[in-house]
Amino acid sequence: MLQRSRVTVEPVARLIDELARLPGIGPKTASRLAYYVLRAPREQALSLADAILEVKEKVILCSRCFNITDTDPCAICRDHDREQGIICVVEEPLDVLALERTGEYRGLYHVLHGAISPVDGVGPDKLRIRELIERVAEQHPREVILATNPNIEGDATAMYVARQLAPSGVSVSRPASGLPVGGDIEYADEVTLGRALSGRRAL
Amino acid sequence: MLQRSRVTVEPVARLIDELARLPGIGPKTASRLAYYVLRAPREQALSLADAILEVKEKVILCSRCFNITDTDPCAICRDHDREQGIICVVEEPLDVLALERTGEYRGLYHVLHGAISPVDGVGPDKLRIRELIERVAEQHPREVILATNPNIEGDATAMYVARQLAPSGVSVSRPASGLPVGGDIEYADEVTLGRALSGRRAL
Repeated sequence: MLQRSRVTVEPVARLIDELARLPGIGPKTASRLAYYVLRAPREQALSLADAILEVKEKVILCSRCFNITDTDPCAICRDHDREQGIICVVEEPLDVLALERTGEYRGLYHVLHGAISPVDGVGPDKLRIRELIERVAEQHPREVILATNPNIEGDATAMYVARQLAPSGVSVSRPASGLPVGGDIEYADEVTLGRALSGRRAL
Repeated sequence: MLQRSRVTVEPVARLIDELARLPGIGPKTASRLAYYVLRAPREQALSLADAILEVKEKVILCSRCFNITDTDPCAICRDHDREQGIICVVEEPLDVLALERTGEYRGLYHVLHGAISPVDGVGPDKLRIRELIERVAEQHPREVILATNPNIEGDATAMYVARQLAPSGVSVSRPASGLPVGGDIEYADEVTLGRALSGRRAL
């Protein structure tokens, strides 16, 4: 929060405070943005405020896959051209967008809305894991891909979900870890390089 | 603008687009912010939207100094404890805040709202220069400090304003250019170091 001197204009100070609550926006950036909004055409500022309100009013979670959507079920769950037998489990809605951009995946999704993280007080019950187990029991997909992030929390979440899914007999997989395409072995960290080696494939 | 795939949720895509119009916010940051707003408590999002609207509704320009304010005249112009005989001319309202933070200045301000920049199509007539000349003619201050930015546009603007003020006979000054306090001569750029030398003061 910027120091509020006697000369600060209250509405501007308030906007700076609100903007500074956003992640990655410090007080300097917040005041730059606030002064930009102040000078921007009225329509642009109204449009931004309206977009914020609209996103809170119209966006819901799909009752099947828990991805964000403005229709229920969401466009992916409604699309019968997609492979119904594969469910890709991700942490966040943004992961769905990333996977869709690859153009490589044509199955369904299930969004957990986070990863198990005891440090942050996120246990399995705060995620959509129970809903996934129920969905798998009902729909009997042939494969569940656990595409949680390749870090400690994501790995732990994948392990936990895999254990929960074991009784259902569904085939469970995890995306390969290894060297990023376009990367450089010289600069790869040792964990990634180690995983790339242990996961090597015959040419 | 992020690629809008078929799976994009329209209100989210719209918010991402609106956020990406802000300066220094790229499409990646915009989508991170949009998803943050989506998950933030409803009150926080409403409060942000409201702060944006409020800043457009309530903030006006002071009719004397053209600083932003929610009362006219602004708090500084109304404050009779301030030195009425000095006017500090700045480019932007943020410059007023920066000068106030120093605690060194107790006079009045005049905000030009920009600097002369032929490249960007900003001529003297787009700035509050005429209003400054009239104000000086009416109020007869004993000094005008031209605290425009120490760059090409700011220097040119200061030169222009000084020439316009010359007939009024008011004393005109410009803040010192030189080495920043806490800086290092080794790393100073040659223009700054040159100015610091030519502006040296007897100890």
